[in-house]
This record gives sequence, C-alpha cells and structure tokens, in this order.
Amino acid sequence: MLNYRTEDLSPEEIAREVEVAGALAQSTRELVDAVIRSTVPHEEMEDVRSQVEALTARLRASQIEGAYGAVISSEGKVRNMGNTVVGQRNAIAPPLETHWSEDGTASADFHLGAAYEGPPGLVHGGVSALILDQVCGEAAAAGGSPGMTGRLTLTYRRGTPLGDLHAEGAIVKVDGVKTYVEAHIADAEGPTVLAEGIFILPRWAREQLAQQKQETFE
Amino acid sequence: MLNYRTEDLSPEEIAREVEVAGALAQSTRELVDAVIRSTVPHEEMEDVRSQVEALTARLRASQIEGAYGAVISSEGKVRNMGNTVVGQRNAIAPPLETHWSEDGTASADFHLGAAYEGPPGLVHGGVSALILDQVCGEAAAAGGSPGMTGRLTLTYRRGTPLGDLHAEGAIVKVDGVKTYVEAHIADAEGPTVLAEGIFILPRWAREQLAQQKQETFE
Repeated sequence: MLNYRTEDLSPEEIAREVEVAGALAQSTRELVDAVIRSTVPHEEMEDVRSQVEALTARLRASQIEGAYGAVISSEGKVRNMGNTVVGQRNAIAPPLETHWSEDGTASADFHLGAAYEGPPGLVHGGVSALILDQVCGEAAAAGGSPGMTGRLTLTYRRGTPLGDLHAEGAIVKVDGVKTYVEAHIADAEGPTVLAEGIFILPRWAREQLAQQKQETFE
Repeated sequence: MLNYRTEDLSPEEIAREVEVAGALAQSTRELVDAVIRSTVPHEEMEDVRSQVEALTARLRASQIEGAYGAVISSEGKVRNMGNTVVGQRNAIAPPLETHWSEDGTASADFHLGAAYEGPPGLVHGGVSALILDQVCGEAAAAGGSPGMTGRLTLTYRRGTPLGDLHAEGAIVKVDGVKTYVEAHIADAEGPTVLAEGIFILPRWAREQLAQQKQETFE
C-alpha cells in the first residue's frame, strides 16, 4: 500500500517533468474526446488504433512498475501526478487545478466535455461525486487535517450540464482524526450537487506523517 | 439537454461499430496508462505527443457536435457509448460490463489500474463513488424503475486496492418515482465501500419514455 517513492529531483527538474508529461497527458485527453465523437470510416479508425498501439509501445519501453503513487521530492513536496482528478499525467483527470486556503477551503474552475457524460448532455452523477470527493479531501488537507474518505453524502438538486463548472469545499468541523467538510458543484445558475464528507486520517498515514516530520528535523 | 439521436443502424451495423470504435477506445485506455507510467526521455515523450495530436486530428476530420448522447436504434435499443463508466467508446470507462436481473440487480467484475489511483496503491475514493453511482442506477433500471441520482451516500470501510474488483447493487424499495438501491464494491477479502442511493425519474424523462412507448405502439 505504501508505494511512496522519493526522487532526487530539483524544483526545476520537477517543473520540466510536469511540463513535458503534462503536455502529453493533455494531448491524450483530446484523443479520448475524439475517440468518443469521431465519425470517420471504420478503416480509418482501425489504422488510427494501430498507430495508438505503436505509440503506447514506445512509452512502455521504459516505465515504472504499477501505479504512479506519490513521489516525495528532496524538498519534501508530495506529487500525485497519477491522481484521477488532479493528476497532470492522468488523461482521465480534467485535471482540476485547486486553490487552497489555510482556513480549510479548496476550489477549482474546470471544464467537463464529452468524456464525462452520463445522461445525454449532462455530467455523469458519479463524476460529480468523484470531483466532490477530491475537493472535500483537499479542503481537509488545506486546513491541516487531511484524511481518507470515511463517508460521503451527495445530494443532487438538478442535472449538471457539461461545460464550464465550479467546485468548492470548506471544513465545517474537526473532531480528533475526523474532519467534516461541505462542498458543492455549480454551473452559472448556481449549485447543482451538494456534498457532505467525513475524512479520517488512517493510522498508517499518521505514522508515516510523524516519521516524515521526524526525518525533516533530523 | 435532450440530445437523443436516432439512427437507422441494423443490429449488425451496431455490433460492428461497437467492435471498431470499442477497440480504438481500448487502445486509448492503454495509452492513458502508459502516459502515467512512462519514464522514457523527454524528447521521446514530446515526439509521441506530436504523433498523438496528429491522430486526434485524423479522428476529428469527421465528428459529431458535442457529447455522444444516447443513440436510439431503429429497434428502440438505447446506446450510451460515451458514458464515463460503461461507454465502450470512452477511454475513461474501465469499462464496466454490467449484468442485470429483472428483480432489480446489477453487477460487474472489472479491473482498475494506475489511472484510477487516489492514495498510493489505492482506488481514488471518488472513483469508487463513480462506479457505485453507475451500478446503483443500473440496478434501478434493471428492475424497471430507472432514474437519475437524487442522493448517494458512500461509506468507506477500508482502502480499496487497485486491481481486480467486483461491484453489485440491488433495489431495496420502490416508492412512486423514487427507487432505493444498495450496492458495494469488494475485493477478494470482501466489501470495501458501501453505497445507498435514491434514484428519481425526472419529469422530462417520464414524458420521453411515455412518448417512446406510444410511438412503439403506433
């Protein structure tokens, strides 16, 4: 479970990796969208497919084993570039660029296209849940009381249209290892989905954080 | 909102589209995974990116406007090939292949790799929510009382490891336009996340279903 890795990358090297791998992921997001919407002839699709497979083989010529995990740089900064919602390397992620405040809030403006559809023209209800889980978790972390999702309750007021959207969350209470957060997604007309979450810091993470702090001071 | 489209495709033509476009989406899923995990030199990543962009342009030479929506075939079968969880054309979707029973259950075995990561080595809590929303909604539909998500509550028992997983849901009660569903995700050791959902058939969908039934009998 604890596949944290550490790398001796300088801030400049990290910025360069985010730039190059992030641009590749962004192009892959466009491909994902085009695969859903394309109406080119089947022969053309089949040729594109064989080209995609060749590109994948080139990327796999050298790759990490398993998932990306969290990489901790020499400066102690954690990077989750594979994260499904915010990971710059993950073409599934819109990606959300969240803004944090120390009083325990997180917010993001983002765009959801064809790949996030559930009912026709609307954001998949589960995609709203996916994004709100991340925003709630980041609000908890922003306020200094991070955790893993313990409970999440979503209330859907109306359909969320595909397009430009906003999400924000805030800590409402901290009780020991439990952090209570509220969040919502909104379109231009206001909130569409509300979330209430309880985030709990598991023991293995508490021990890991304590160890990291200790190493920082050694 | 109602971008349902109808197409005069025969069952054989639909099967062929699922095969060709589905294979392209599957190759794109592999690319998404490789983009996260690749450690090839930056120059190689940049060259792959330019190739990906060229392939996207070829697919966009002819494409539908906006999202995929739901296509209703001449036989009245609805296809949601763009759906984020089950869409065969959507590289974000694992995709889940759900099995329905008429007494209102839906289940699926599936595999989640690097693209679905939240905490290191674990499924993103929001991805579990995304999948459970879909499974709950399909259970409601399987039992003849479909709806859009009204409320969804997720209880996380423990981290869900990336890998082979199972999800299943069942209707527990139907009350007018509200369908109550329970579901869970499990790994080999048992359930990791539980879900309780209320699904509500909105008025526009009720009217549309009524119209479709009427047309069927005309």
